[in-house]
Amino acid sequence: MKFNKFDKLWCIKEDQFNVNNNKYYEGIFTQGNGFMSIRGSFEEGINDAPQDEEYIRMPANVTLETARNPRSKWGTYVPGIVGIHPLLKEEIINLPCFLEVILCFEDEKLDTERCEIEEYTRWLDLRDATLNRIFIWNTKCGAKLELKYSRFISLNDKNICAQQIKIKLLKGNGKLKINSGINGNVRTNGYNHLNNIEMSFTDEKDVLVKTTTDKGDSITQISSTQSMNGEAWDEKLGTNVAFLESNVPMNENEEITINKYNILITDRDTEKDLMLTKGMELLKRAKESGFDKLYEVHKLKWDEKWENSDIKIGGNDNLQIAIRMSIYHLIRSNAEKDSRVAICAKGYAGEAYFGRYFWDTEIYMLPYYIYTNPEAARNLILFRYNTLEGAKKNAKHYGYNGARYPWESSVTGEEQCPLWQYADHEIHVTADIAYAIWHYYMATNDEEFMQNYGIDILVETSRYWIDRVDKNEKGYYELLGVMGPDEYLPLTRNNSYTNRMVKFNLSKTIEYIDKIKKSNVDFYISIAQRLNLRESEIENFSEVQAKLVLCYDKDTEIVPQSEDFYKYADLDFLTIWKDRSKPFGHFISQEKNYRSKALKQADVLELMVLFQKEFSREQIIKAYEYYEPITTHDSSLSAAIHSIICCWIGKEEDTEKFLNKAIDIDMSLEKKGAEEGIHIANCGGLWQLVVFGFAGLKSPMDSEELKFEPKLPKSINSMDFSIIWHNKSYNVSINKDGYEVKAK
Amino acid sequence: MKFNKFDKLWCIKEDQFNVNNNKYYEGIFTQGNGFMSIRGSFEEGINDAPQDEEYIRMPANVTLETARNPRSKWGTYVPGIVGIHPLLKEEIINLPCFLEVILCFEDEKLDTERCEIEEYTRWLDLRDATLNRIFIWNTKCGAKLELKYSRFISLNDKNICAQQIKIKLLKGNGKLKINSGINGNVRTNGYNHLNNIEMSFTDEKDVLVKTTTDKGDSITQISSTQSMNGEAWDEKLGTNVAFLESNVPMNENEEITINKYNILITDRDTEKDLMLTKGMELLKRAKESGFDKLYEVHKLKWDEKWENSDIKIGGNDNLQIAIRMSIYHLIRSNAEKDSRVAICAKGYAGEAYFGRYFWDTEIYMLPYYIYTNPEAARNLILFRYNTLEGAKKNAKHYGYNGARYPWESSVTGEEQCPLWQYADHEIHVTADIAYAIWHYYMATNDEEFMQNYGIDILVETSRYWIDRVDKNEKGYYELLGVMGPDEYLPLTRNNSYTNRMVKFNLSKTIEYIDKIKKSNVDFYISIAQRLNLRESEIENFSEVQAKLVLCYDKDTEIVPQSEDFYKYADLDFLTIWKDRSKPFGHFISQEKNYRSKALKQADVLELMVLFQKEFSREQIIKAYEYYEPITTHDSSLSAAIHSIICCWIGKEEDTEKFLNKAIDIDMSLEKKGAEEGIHIANCGGLWQLVVFGFAGLKSPMDSEELKFEPKLPKSINSMDFSIIWHNKSYNVSINKDGYEVKAK
Repeated sequence: MKFNKFDKLWCIKEDQFNVNNNKYYEGIFTQGNGFMSIRGSFEEGINDAPQDEEYIRMPANVTLETARNPRSKWGTYVPGIVGIHPLLKEEIINLPCFLEVILCFEDEKLDTERCEIEEYTRWLDLRDATLNRIFIWNTKCGAKLELKYSRFISLNDKNICAQQIKIKLLKGNGKLKINSGINGNVRTNGYNHLNNIEMSFTDEKDVLVKTTTDKGDSITQISSTQSMNGEAWDEKLGTNVAFLESNVPMNENEEITINKYNILITDRDTEKDLMLTKGMELLKRAKESGFDKLYEVHKLKWDEKWENSDIKIGGNDNLQIAIRMSIYHLIRSNAEKDSRVAICAKGYAGEAYFGRYFWDTEIYMLPYYIYTNPEAARNLILFRYNTLEGAKKNAKHYGYNGARYPWESSVTGEEQCPLWQYADHEIHVTADIAYAIWHYYMATNDEEFMQNYGIDILVETSRYWIDRVDKNEKGYYELLGVMGPDEYLPLTRNNSYTNRMVKFNLSKTIEYIDKIKKSNVDFYISIAQRLNLRESEIENFSEVQAKLVLCYDKDTEIVPQSEDFYKYADLDFLTIWKDRSKPFGHFISQEKNYRSKALKQADVLELMVLFQKEFSREQIIKAYEYYEPITTHDSSLSAAIHSIICCWIGKEEDTEKFLNKAIDIDMSLEKKGAEEGIHIANCGGLWQLVVFGFAGLKSPMDSEELKFEPKLPKSINSMDFSIIWHNKSYNVSINKDGYEVKAK
Repeated sequence: MKFNKFDKLWCIKEDQFNVNNNKYYEGIFTQGNGFMSIRGSFEEGINDAPQDEEYIRMPANVTLETARNPRSKWGTYVPGIVGIHPLLKEEIINLPCFLEVILCFEDEKLDTERCEIEEYTRWLDLRDATLNRIFIWNTKCGAKLELKYSRFISLNDKNICAQQIKIKLLKGNGKLKINSGINGNVRTNGYNHLNNIEMSFTDEKDVLVKTTTDKGDSITQISSTQSMNGEAWDEKLGTNVAFLESNVPMNENEEITINKYNILITDRDTEKDLMLTKGMELLKRAKESGFDKLYEVHKLKWDEKWENSDIKIGGNDNLQIAIRMSIYHLIRSNAEKDSRVAICAKGYAGEAYFGRYFWDTEIYMLPYYIYTNPEAARNLILFRYNTLEGAKKNAKHYGYNGARYPWESSVTGEEQCPLWQYADHEIHVTADIAYAIWHYYMATNDEEFMQNYGIDILVETSRYWIDRVDKNEKGYYELLGVMGPDEYLPLTRNNSYTNRMVKFNLSKTIEYIDKIKKSNVDFYISIAQRLNLRESEIENFSEVQAKLVLCYDKDTEIVPQSEDFYKYADLDFLTIWKDRSKPFGHFISQEKNYRSKALKQADVLELMVLFQKEFSREQIIKAYEYYEPITTHDSSLSAAIHSIICCWIGKEEDTEKFLNKAIDIDMSLEKKGAEEGIHIANCGGLWQLVVFGFAGLKSPMDSEELKFEPKLPKSINSMDFSIIWHNKSYNVSINKDGYEVKAK
């Protein structure tokens, strides 16, 4: 395979190995193609990092927990393949690892930490999504080997992952032992979801592993290892491990190339009885194609992706690589055409949050897809349609009609969050989904989607809301016992964000019903029948919509986070938050936090980003100046939103500060945010910051035309990107002097 | 042994066996002597009720959970012998069962459910704390046996439990097989805390079981089984089971008496190396004494107890037996002289709440001990002194100075409650302990206790409070984020009960410091040095005490449960609570509950009981009329308090209604409240209802004289009881015409 020429604006690079950074790179180097994702672990693993340790990860605040598996965590994930945990409910399953290739030279085992390694370099090339590693190994016996690793998960053939290792003996002679196979000694957050692992070999000496999960899913993995030199391979079986072994005598200057082709098929994508046949066929074709051909078709697909998705940033290389990293992970983690799954909070690059789905999808990630790949956006929203029954069950569980989307969604839409304060009270997610539907609809005019799916969600969520409100003495409706986006106040009264979103949800339900009614009465009747929708219900929607409380303090011009916000205690941040490199939450008990004014993240400011047109510049400035000093930014959802706000109100310094904060969330080697997975919502947040913030794209909810109001911060000279608006593609070029939009 | 003559006012009786009631009787028939408690399970167990099933009891709301082990639950508990659970933290350990005696006649195993049983009767005699069972067994082979069982846990010899079984063959001939031993196949809430169970036999054919718990405690149990007929016993060992077997040929009219003497010793009461020797000695003495002698000395101790504790009720037999049941369990569950433990929420008669200590001890149970057994009361409070270090750790954990008592206390005083809403926010327990200290002090004048222990607790808790308050804009202090006694509102502002109790705590700290200062400056200095007490701190105590908010609505004359109480939603109880035989909590989600006005239990009314003098009759009436209709009484702590309130304000019908509700909590065979253990707080509540309610005893905090203001409800003609006041005993006789108090 011919490597792309290294380009620092396209590659994330590790210059030298340090075991303390290993888990970080495993996270940020995660590869995938939507169907599967695999963390960037070494083919040979690292020492003293067992992957089958049993423990219980408690469902605690992820920001504050101490993670297990400190040196290395393997991860092979297929969205939708989930297991059942007695305490944690549903979680994504970490499947057997088929990357494993262990090398020994003259009985010295290759271990990047323990061996003498020089000229080490590893990089993820975002253009073609290949992970590459090159280094020199000076063995104890005096030999010198040059090793070159490359691997990719095919974007063209979703079930295939290909690896190549080139080994050149630069100096000395000796015997190279190669062990290549599949290792099933893995756990998910310390738990074993693999009920049965059947290890064998095919007639063609491929390693074959059939796994059954505790939820009953079947997974077939087949690995073929080939060396161009045609060595003999011995079959070896261990506990949950099957591999091929070859002992190759090498002479100075001799070179060996190992190609490994891995197939992963599940009963979610292929009928169970056909899995093996299909897998063997795919493997046969892969072997026939060979590594280079597989790479070529894979690369073409990535070229297409970048053609629609890339954002060129002039002047700010940090942002340039970060935005490409973000877009890469947004592409890599999304099962584009599969609406049975969405994107989990860690983007299938780790096991924190157990692979569940949050509001992150709709509010943070979805805009990227709406404007670059509307089909993918549609499927993400269809996931919520496909889980509508689960949402109805949730509503019923709480004693309400309609649909109540879960704070942490399972693949069936049922609530998975084991902590009641979030599960019970962070109810805005239901309205966020309605907002996302409308956003998608306004950007695409996808009437077919609205008529067949969108309206169902709008009506069912509205049914929930009219049950969830309480009527106060004055005849107004209230939402009590609410946790807003700020998760540091669990039970507030009339959270402004939530109330406004619910009003939006109800009003768009009414608006769309009105629209169908006016355009085609017969069709309206058929929809009303399908949804068992009565006029009295629609009147209720209107009544609650009109009389739902929205708080505003006219004297201070501040939108209160909640009606009771001013009653919480003031905190002395300077005294409490002694080390700002650590989350605020480290320095205060949850108990004290829950009675004090200390925001975890943007709340009113998030509202202002979503409803830009409703708030004056002065109101936004007042809100920023009131809330930001008491915001801890302990959530990764906070920085990008704050940067957008600062950009809009012209606070240049703070714009850059929060931009860099958002970049650092996953890019900072010091913070190591990517260890437990990618903060994929922040990836979407960064994209929004660039497009809605710096480029100033007007939301299709506020503007029928494609309109920009660019406000480039000092560090950025120019931006070039593509955008899809009402089903047409445009190239957008922005520089300090103005901007240009051209139809593609 | 000569049985007491059966007396329905002294005995709780089961007239016929019904397996659905089995667990209820196991609970209510629990026997004990403070050192150990054992549930009232059959000697032979019942079929299809394995005691070693493994499961995890989740730390949920006990009122609403579905209990495991539905047919039978054995329980052998020693206060202080606790284990460590990975999820549930500390819990009491259910120890191996030494009661087991299994009988087979001609290969038919005695099983009360499956065999043909007639004339069945079982009763717990509260006078001598013996559990008795008599029935006729018609065997399949046509024989007829009469069986008489008796057992007691000696109140004289704390390590001894004695059993007797008399078997008379009324008809037929055949072989009786007796298996008698110790069974270690037990679990605590589904968890195995017994790391090592060593089963053997002594030279004298006693079954010897040495157990080590997962916390490292050692327990030695020895059982000697003797039959007067001198049968041969074979030693048998099974998995965690050791027993003796004898096959006895019986002829018509022959009678066999089996005596079983059981010793239980732990390393908490005896040095580890001496346990076996002491156990063998005790067993030897028990065998020499014989069952009847052991019984006699045991009975004498109970006579003494009843002499000081009994309350004779004229006219209301239900209350008569219920109050005696309550007093029995208060005596039986309390380790009188051991201040290293207190009384757990289920009175060591079950495993709900995991054997932990709540405010129940101080506010519900303690008064009984203060007025009948001050030494026991002192030791209960000393438990809080002994766990002061744990309370300091808790305070530190939350970032505060001083001592913060845990909502659910371990034996070391550390917080065990795994649910944060209680652990973090139900803070009143700390002030409740200060209240209890003052109550004890006022009733006993125990200056020595105050000087050496009480003042330490008062000062350390006050230190916590001045850190826990928030100062509002007007300069007043507030307690935010508080769950009051009403556990259906987790995060309220300025809960009246809590704020008043905290004010009391601070004021009594100041008062007692002042008192010592005035009486003996040198002594004061020594105490100030011991506690590192500074004048500025005392000023802070005064400042916060004086300016702590107490809410009161002058217009409605209602004491609000909390400052924000009126902001919660109103509920339509009639629509929601469809079946009043079930807790309200069954019909509403916690989410909805937490934002609505629906009290779990007395909150403001509890405050009014504790501070009777501060509230006018009108205020109490207003409070009762406002709160009672929105109170669900889902907590067992509610009924007795409501009955006291009703008694005071002259609502006769409601007094009786709540009296009967309180009686039913454990006495009702239909409700089966005692299945998972005794509601021991309600036992104390019933006692308070009789003494503070009906007899109208004035609190020593309000009155220096022993004063009564009797208000006998219609159903009660007279009451006679003893009471200790300022170290003197009095006999109190009350009837409809008046009352008489005589020094004993």
